[in-house]
Amino acid sequence: MRRVSADSAQLTDEHGIQVGRWSQYAGTDGLPFDAMWCVVPPGSRTDPDCHPEVELAVVVDGAATFESGETTLDAAQGAAVLLSSNERHIVHNRSDAAPLVMLSIYWLPADLGESGDGP
Amino acid sequence: MRRVSADSAQLTDEHGIQVGRWSQYAGTDGLPFDAMWCVVPPGSRTDPDCHPEVELAVVVDGAATFESGETTLDAAQGAAVLLSSNERHIVHNRSDAAPLVMLSIYWLPADLGESGDGP
Repeated sequence: MRRVSADSAQLTDEHGIQVGRWSQYAGTDGLPFDAMWCVVPPGSRTDPDCHPEVELAVVVDGAATFESGETTLDAAQGAAVLLSSNERHIVHNRSDAAPLVMLSIYWLPADLGESGDGP
Repeated sequence: MRRVSADSAQLTDEHGIQVGRWSQYAGTDGLPFDAMWCVVPPGSRTDPDCHPEVELAVVVDGAATFESGETTLDAAQGAAVLLSSNERHIVHNRSDAAPLVMLSIYWLPADLGESGDGP
C-alpha cells in the first residue's frame, strides 16, 4: 500500500492554479485514468477548461463552486463532481482564507479511444 | 455536471461499516472503475478485506489508519491510499468522535479481465 497527497506532491503552476500530476508517481501508469491534485488559492479560480475527457473532481479540502455556462454547483469538502466530456467549466474557491484542494481523475470515454492531452 | 456525496447517498451495512455503492447513481456505468462511499464510525474498523481489484481509497473526511499484515499507514483527510491487487487490508478509524469517510475506487487490473464481485 502506498499513500499519496497534495501536501507532499510536486506542484506546478497550470490553468491559474497549482497542479500535481500523478505522472510524478512511478508505477501508476497502469491506472485506468489519469489524475492530478489541484490546489486553488483562496479567492481564486481556475482558467476556463474544456476537454474531451470525462472528469471526476473530488473535493478533499476547502469548498468549491463549479461554474458551467449559466449553471453553478457548490461542492463542499467530501463531495465529488462529475463533468461530462467537453463540458466547459471553471472552479472557484470563494473562501478568503482556506485553499481548495481537489483530486481530479479523468479519462477518455470509450467511444473516443485512448489519446488526448487531458485537462 | 453532477454532484454526489456520502451525505446524500443511500448507505447500507457491509463489511462492518456503512457503504454507499455508486451503482445507485444512474448513468455511471460507463466509468472505467467501480466506486463506493465508505463511512467508518468513530472507534470502529472495517472487516479484513482482500480482493483482486486494485483499490484507491481517498480520505474525504476524518482520518484513517490502514493495516496490511505487519504494516500500518496513517492517512489524514485529503490523502489517498493505493492498494495492490489481493493486498489484504483493514481500515481503522481511531478517532473517538469523528466519522471516517472515504471514496473507494476500484478496478480489475488489465491482466485479470473485467469480472469479479469487488470489495
